[in-house]
Amino acid sequence: MLKQMLKRKPIPAPSMTRVKHSPLSPTAPASAGSPALQLFPLPFAAEVRPGDSLPAILLDAGKACGFTFAAGDILVVKHKIVSKAEGCIVRLADVTPSAATVRWAKANQLDPRTIGLALREAKKVLRRKHVLITETRHGFICANSGIDVSNMDGGEHALLLPPDPDRSATKLMRALQRTIGLHIPVIISDSFGRAWREGLTEVAIGVAGMKALHDYRGRRDPHGYLLRASEEAVADELACAAGLACGKLQRAPACVIRGFAYQRAPGSAKSLLRPAKRDLFR
Amino acid sequence: MLKQMLKRKPIPAPSMTRVKHSPLSPTAPASAGSPALQLFPLPFAAEVRPGDSLPAILLDAGKACGFTFAAGDILVVKHKIVSKAEGCIVRLADVTPSAATVRWAKANQLDPRTIGLALREAKKVLRRKHVLITETRHGFICANSGIDVSNMDGGEHALLLPPDPDRSATKLMRALQRTIGLHIPVIISDSFGRAWREGLTEVAIGVAGMKALHDYRGRRDPHGYLLRASEEAVADELACAAGLACGKLQRAPACVIRGFAYQRAPGSAKSLLRPAKRDLFR
Repeated sequence: MLKQMLKRKPIPAPSMTRVKHSPLSPTAPASAGSPALQLFPLPFAAEVRPGDSLPAILLDAGKACGFTFAAGDILVVKHKIVSKAEGCIVRLADVTPSAATVRWAKANQLDPRTIGLALREAKKVLRRKHVLITETRHGFICANSGIDVSNMDGGEHALLLPPDPDRSATKLMRALQRTIGLHIPVIISDSFGRAWREGLTEVAIGVAGMKALHDYRGRRDPHGYLLRASEEAVADELACAAGLACGKLQRAPACVIRGFAYQRAPGSAKSLLRPAKRDLFR
Repeated sequence: MLKQMLKRKPIPAPSMTRVKHSPLSPTAPASAGSPALQLFPLPFAAEVRPGDSLPAILLDAGKACGFTFAAGDILVVKHKIVSKAEGCIVRLADVTPSAATVRWAKANQLDPRTIGLALREAKKVLRRKHVLITETRHGFICANSGIDVSNMDGGEHALLLPPDPDRSATKLMRALQRTIGLHIPVIISDSFGRAWREGLTEVAIGVAGMKALHDYRGRRDPHGYLLRASEEAVADELACAAGLACGKLQRAPACVIRGFAYQRAPGSAKSLLRPAKRDLFR
């Protein structure tokens, strides 16, 4: 949460020669009239169904629009296609909310079964006012435990978050590696609300093949000052960028980001979760 | 904060023909092997100084790397270059923190003068634990009132947020319009910490020429369901995408985003601020 704090060290000013781009280096390329970063949405031809092979669907989607993966690419997929493929679907008719839940939901014009399911999926309730904010079993803090009745069949079913999004991301990454022979980090994203600010933004709920946080502490900025407290949630920022490219109103639930100098690692979205005892706002 | 909630309506499924891209339409282009979104960082040759003309520096930076603005482009600039050009700089030797502030800052290994200045710039203190979280005069909630001693001269001076970032963005947009004859929305960004999640992400603190929030309520998703509660903080997501393209360790404090279908409007980052009475986490 700290702003960057710097300590001066008399080192020579860095030269302004252009940095050559490498996917393993933490410095991004400078522009020379060509883009540093490119985003390729992958429109899907059909809805994903339980049991479907996501790697096969993704490669087909790429083929259909003339897209080919290249070394250094990062794949961002919306969680809904992962949840659907993994069958994380609940029939709302099977949810029996308590009388108290029904009362509260109705008083707040919310669907009692969705709220009942959200409570079932929650490890902890953080706020229950005009909206239900919970901590999920994974440790994510979001509305309704991340349960989604959009993109489903009009309220008959609800989509849950995948039980282990890091594992889902790793599986997808490994399947791509086997098929195309490239290391493609995978980010699984969802749109969450935030404290203090309006509007949803995409966040990373599963990460594989790259560091979710880039740590610039101990590095020097262009002025030669030591960065003392600067960690960047790059996986969340990549999820946001992908969200812009995919759009909300089309069938493009996946997107490839080209040109970001990620740091290769096993990766996990858990590193993005602030432990409760260090968090001042829950 | 609500997840999307949908009501089924029996309308025909949308066709999968590709949407033609227009910067005034809220739908983003589908990929056809070409990127939907491209980001061009603009490296600066020299440090910005008080009184400098940002429009001139930006156009020079573009020229130096062979970049030309096109219709539909969005410009994202880091707040530090705006604050520097506007002279929002305070000599830390001129700050006299109270004895209590000095004690607290030292106990938390923070610089007492920076904390004294942060308190001076704050409308309200939200938390004062191992870190100081305030609401700034503008209404932003962040660490140390957004005061920055990085990218300055090693702790002698601190950079404040611009007093009216929306106005700064509007001025920059109008100057670009006069010079190049194009409507280029401008976003001024800063990196803020967040509740619940680790790592900084870029957020929009000033917006001109486009809506900061895209409202999808009342629109239909690809399955024909009515989106009931979905607002996307696109200005924050654009700031995040730009942050990835600019990098932390180079002199690229500005970035152009090409291909995002923004909604033209006067614009303001204030629409991103949740009013205190609707916020459950402060």
